[in-house]
This record gives sequence, C-alpha cells and structure tokens, in this order.
Amino acid sequence: MTKFLLALALIGAATFAVGCSGGRSDNSNYANDRAEIENLQARYLFALDFNDGKTYASVFAPDGELDWANGVIKGRENIVNETQIMKEKFAKGGKNNDKPSLRHFITSNVIEVSGDRAVGRAYWFELFNDVPAGADPVVRAYGHSEDEYKKIDGHWLWARRKIFNEMMASRLAPAVNPALSLGK
Amino acid sequence: MTKFLLALALIGAATFAVGCSGGRSDNSNYANDRAEIENLQARYLFALDFNDGKTYASVFAPDGELDWANGVIKGRENIVNETQIMKEKFAKGGKNNDKPSLRHFITSNVIEVSGDRAVGRAYWFELFNDVPAGADPVVRAYGHSEDEYKKIDGHWLWARRKIFNEMMASRLAPAVNPALSLGK
Amino acid sequence: MTKFLLALALIGAATFAVGCSGGRSDNSNYANDRAEIENLQARYLFALDFNDGKTYASVFAPDGELDWANGVIKGRENIVNETQIMKEKFAKGGKNNDKPSLRHFITSNVIEVSGDRAVGRAYWFELFNDVPAGADPVVRAYGHSEDEYKKIDGHWLWARRKIFNEMMASRLAPAVNPALSLGK
Repeated sequence: MTKFLLALALIGAATFAVGCSGGRSDNSNYANDRAEIENLQARYLFALDFNDGKTYASVFAPDGELDWANGVIKGRENIVNETQIMKEKFAKGGKNNDKPSLRHFITSNVIEVSGDRAVGRAYWFELFNDVPAGADPVVRAYGHSEDEYKKIDGHWLWARRKIFNEMMASRLAPAVNPALSLGK
Repeated sequence: MTKFLLALALIGAATFAVGCSGGRSDNSNYANDRAEIENLQARYLFALDFNDGKTYASVFAPDGELDWANGVIKGRENIVNETQIMKEKFAKGGKNNDKPSLRHFITSNVIEVSGDRAVGRAYWFELFNDVPAGADPVVRAYGHSEDEYKKIDGHWLWARRKIFNEMMASRLAPAVNPALSLGK
Repeated sequence: MTKFLLALALIGAATFAVGCSGGRSDNSNYANDRAEIENLQARYLFALDFNDGKTYASVFAPDGELDWANGVIKGRENIVNETQIMKEKFAKGGKNNDKPSLRHFITSNVIEVSGDRAVGRAYWFELFNDVPAGADPVVRAYGHSEDEYKKIDGHWLWARRKIFNEMMASRLAPAVNPALSLGK
C-alpha cells in the first residue's frame, strides 16, 4: 500500500510539473511580455508628446540606444538631453497655433520574445494641429521602427529603437519586409 | 515510510501552492486585465460610430461617468440619452456626403491595474469622410483620455472617462504628462 | 494512516486539477489568444505594405478567404497571386513620389474566442505619401473588417477576412453595429 501511495505521489508530482509549466507556457508568457511592452510604448509616447524627458529616458535600458532623425543617441543621460532638441524640432510654439500639440502613435506590433530579450517591428504616425483656424489637423509623418527590448529586474525596457520615416528621404524603409523573419 | 509519504505530500502541496499562484501572478493578471479593457474600448468605439446607444452605455459601470465636450454625464440612462446628442453633433447627414462615416480610434494605452480597479491614459483620434467627391478623408480631431475602470462580477467597465480634445480650446490637455505617475 | 495519506493524495490531485485549470482559465487563454491574433494582424500589415506575398498568404488558413474590393479570394495560392493585383492597385510608382509608401493600420479589435475559433471586428485605415513636395501625407481610406480566425497546430490564422471601406460606395459598412453581438 505504501508503495502504491509513493507511486501516486510521484505521478502527482510529475503531473503537477507538466500541468503548471503548461500554465506558464510560452504562450502565457507571450501575452504578459507583449502587454508590458505595449504599456512601455504608451508611456514613451506620452513622455515624448508632453516633453517629459525624464520619463522618456526611463523607458530605455541604462545603455539603451535611440537611432532617430538626429543620429544615434546612447545612454539615458544623452537621451534626456536629446529631448531638448526634440522639443525645439517639434516646434512647440507654432505658425498658426501658439500651443500646437503633436501626438505620436504606435500600432501594428510584430513582437517576438525569447527569454529576457525581444525583437519588434511596429508602425508609427504623428498628428499635428498647427493649422489655420477652422482647418483640420494633419498627419505630419509616418513610418516604422525596428526595436530590441530587454527585461531587467522583471521590467521590459528598450535596448535599441531605430525609427524610419517615410517623409524623410534619409530615413526611408528598406525594400524588404522588415518583419519578414519575425513571429513565424 | 508513512512519515516520509506524509512529508512528500506536504512538500507537494506547498510546491503546488507556490507554482500555481505563480501561474496567476500579477504579471499574468495584467495581460488578462489589459486584454479585456482593450476589448471594452473597441466595443465602445463600434457602439459610438454606429449609433448603438445601448451598447455604448453598457460599457460604463451603472454609476459610471462620461466627461466630454458636452458636460459630465452620470449613469447609464443619462449616457444612453447623451448618445442622441452625439448623433446630431456628429452630423450623420453631411455637407458633401449624405452618409458620412465618422470613425473613432483609441490607441497608446498606459494602464495600471490594482485589484478590481484600473487607471488609464490613452490617445484617440477620429477620421471623417464628409469631403467633396475625389478628396481624401480627413482627421477631424484628436486628443487623450483619462480613464478609471472597475471590475464588476468579473467584467471590466468604465467608472469614469474624461476626454480631452486638441481641436477644442476648452478641452486641451494639461501641460504636464498625464501619464507621469502611471506604470512605473 | 495509509488511508489518511491516500485521502490526502486524492485531495491534492483534485486541488491540482482545479487550481491549474484556473491558471489556464478562459481569462488567461483570452489574453494569449488576443496577443497572438494581434501579432498575426501586424505580420499581415507589414507583408501587405512591403509586397511580401508569401508572408501575406501565410497568415491565412490553407482554405482561408479574403473578401476585399477585388472580390472573394480563397486559398493561399490564389491569395499570393492576388497580392500582384494589390501591388498594381496600390500604385508603387506614384504621381508625385517615385517611391510612395502606403501603410495600413489595424486597431480597435473586438475579439471573441471560443476554443479554436475566434470572431473579430476591427477598424483599419491607410496613410499615403504620394503628395506634392512639402505637402503632408494623407489618409487615403478607412473602414472596418469582419474576421474569423481558427487555431491550427497551436497557431491562429485567418479563416475569413472581409474588408469594408468607407471611401468605396460598394464596400460601405452596414447601418447596424457590426460588433453588436460580440464580447458581451
């Protein structure tokens, strides 16, 4: 009888191990990782549009890189400084509107996660209201990004963000699908 | 032997408790909560754009509040009535198109969940096709929202939704990042 | 004593079954399914905009259907061929820009999952930069889609995608909320 119980206990333990690793399968991690990365992107967007340089830099890893129209910027301190340049570039005092509001959007995330690393491709666009009175706001630009993320102390951060822009000749997308190898 | 089996059973039970609470960790709840809130937002958008007042009101808690261009509206009955005003305001018979279609979009969700409550910030914009024949559709407006959600009987609902609009002088965003304190 | 242990083992097994099915509850599956379907949509968008017909067809089930402006296309081989027509229709050599970039976006997903099947409604829009030098890009079109997905070998694929377009008289949305019955 005790042998039978021992066997039962071992079967139970084995079932438990399989069952619960199932409950934490790649799939369920994927939803969590994706949810946190999308939340990170949204925090980035609010920080960008509201000139909150400190929060903007905090979504990057300490050695994170931002590759955008103005060059490759590495590390949080340099990224905080870079937001000053963005502030001027994005013309907060406008031609037609003395408080123009630029808003950036990120959608269409292809994200592939492997442990504490993730690679992503996404689309972005920006809307702007520095227009004559009565006119509709405009789409100012759009493009895609090529992103690397890493998880540090349980939190996803950008390791690298490279921004392509279909309204800037020097930042156009390549011809080949940038998401070709991801998520298969 | 029986003592050994008892110990084994207790270890098993303990492991089980830890393992499965892990499978339902804060992280995994976050993905679920976020998925359900984003689904709620999409149901809200379809209801709004297709003049479905009943569904529109059903995404709010019974005592939910909608704070928009026309004032603060509280409770489902008042919100259903409010959709009649929206219908007129959103001009379903247009200047250039006798069946114009306004479409609202919500993206860029910063969402922080704490038990049965959640706080969020998001961006929205709207597209409109009441334009002369051959012209492209326009972005009519955009802005952000400040949202509170609560979970009732296992379902997330809006407790409060306040809508800011960068095309209305009276509904402009504040200067400080509205998502500053969220999701850190 | 052995009877007691047996009882303990059985209680343990029962608890395990309940606990871990909880860890894989409808809720947690929902987040996973939704995450994978949104990733599928993003792969579809990159494939569409970068003329990657093979990847475009691969997001459909082998007998999947695409119902769009040019008709109902069934099966991957036919869908690959269809992407050649899209390529011409979407005018890759433009009037004002010799490398115009059309970008499609999908947002606002209402998704309801039932086992290996899912039904969805979503919004889409497209941005285009075939504009005179110095002009802003335009929204070219927008609408919604009515989608069916199925899970094959653990992967979600489109079983059917029907695209409505508010800039084409023949593809306008119905009057009734297309998401009315979903996600309640």
